[in-house]
Amino acid sequence: MKQYPHIIVSNPSEHKGKWNQVFNNDHPIHVEVGTGKGQFLMGMGMLHPEVNYIGIEKYDSVIITALERAIESEQPNVKFLNEDVTNILDYFDQGEVDRLFINFTDPWPKNKHEKRRLTYKGFLDLYKQILKPTGEIHFKTDNQGLFEYSLESLSGYGMSLHNVSLDLHKSDIEGNVMTEYEEKFSQKGMRIYRCEAKFR
Amino acid sequence: MKQYPHIIVSNPSEHKGKWNQVFNNDHPIHVEVGTGKGQFLMGMGMLHPEVNYIGIEKYDSVIITALERAIESEQPNVKFLNEDVTNILDYFDQGEVDRLFINFTDPWPKNKHEKRRLTYKGFLDLYKQILKPTGEIHFKTDNQGLFEYSLESLSGYGMSLHNVSLDLHKSDIEGNVMTEYEEKFSQKGMRIYRCEAKFR
Repeated sequence: MKQYPHIIVSNPSEHKGKWNQVFNNDHPIHVEVGTGKGQFLMGMGMLHPEVNYIGIEKYDSVIITALERAIESEQPNVKFLNEDVTNILDYFDQGEVDRLFINFTDPWPKNKHEKRRLTYKGFLDLYKQILKPTGEIHFKTDNQGLFEYSLESLSGYGMSLHNVSLDLHKSDIEGNVMTEYEEKFSQKGMRIYRCEAKFR
Repeated sequence: MKQYPHIIVSNPSEHKGKWNQVFNNDHPIHVEVGTGKGQFLMGMGMLHPEVNYIGIEKYDSVIITALERAIESEQPNVKFLNEDVTNILDYFDQGEVDRLFINFTDPWPKNKHEKRRLTYKGFLDLYKQILKPTGEIHFKTDNQGLFEYSLESLSGYGMSLHNVSLDLHKSDIEGNVMTEYEEKFSQKGMRIYRCEAKFR
């Protein structure tokens, strides 16, 4: 992975506050936390060349697939960090990010693991710092319990919810880019839940 | 209906700010807007003798069934108003109400009818005035679109969501009292959506 520093950026903290220099433009920056194999981010990058995408994924075993995809497609507007979301403040400056995606993240269903859910208020505290005041969180999951929890957590944090969909693939949303999980689960007929959240 | 003023209260504006005198106790007051045939409220009244219930229903054709039920069960803690929710400020004083129920209300699916939905911000303005600052709104519906809309409307109004359930009859909630609609729709295997909302 170290052979492709223009795709999987090493030492991302060196670019904190200066990601526009890495992309060599002033396009908005959208970050996906827990980006997995990168299918969503690569698809978004193709659909929206006017946006810079950064995916964060801590597991080598999955981000390697993202790397392979990225090498193949040569998209200049998609980069990955092989890092832990917990340290996100090390990589982005206050208000540097325009939008944050959380897709099909681990639901951590046990109460005692609440703090590990990526929509837990501790994580919202981090996201709020790196997002612009007008920034948005876009969230998708097939996990009913995690979605219920996240509606409570996001609204409890003072965020307003927008474009809520309780059955995404039966709604008339346009431009939805599917993740690997989303393809698998929606093919099985399972509901996909989605919402956007703003700080108002 | 005028023969039973102790059940269907006539001239409710005369009791504004003084509902505890009507019930002759200082129990908390829970109001259901659009109470229909009253099955929910009668059930709640039986389960919770320590709460006073007031159901508001503008249609004579359905509230008559509520009256018949109430005559039969002789519950002192359930009363009805044959009135329009739009005028709710005429019937209750600031902070007089502890909880508000909205159950299986008309979804008014067309955008141009948004203002008629009982979770529209214009109605939330009214509810906020009659509810205590610690007051809660409890909302149930089988209508996916109305529930999606209501999550947006409630959170957009600054309310926090609690006990969200996207499939009420498959969750482990206790003490759920079913409305007529709820019985019908859940028997058909349709999902019932539920949430609570607070002003924080």
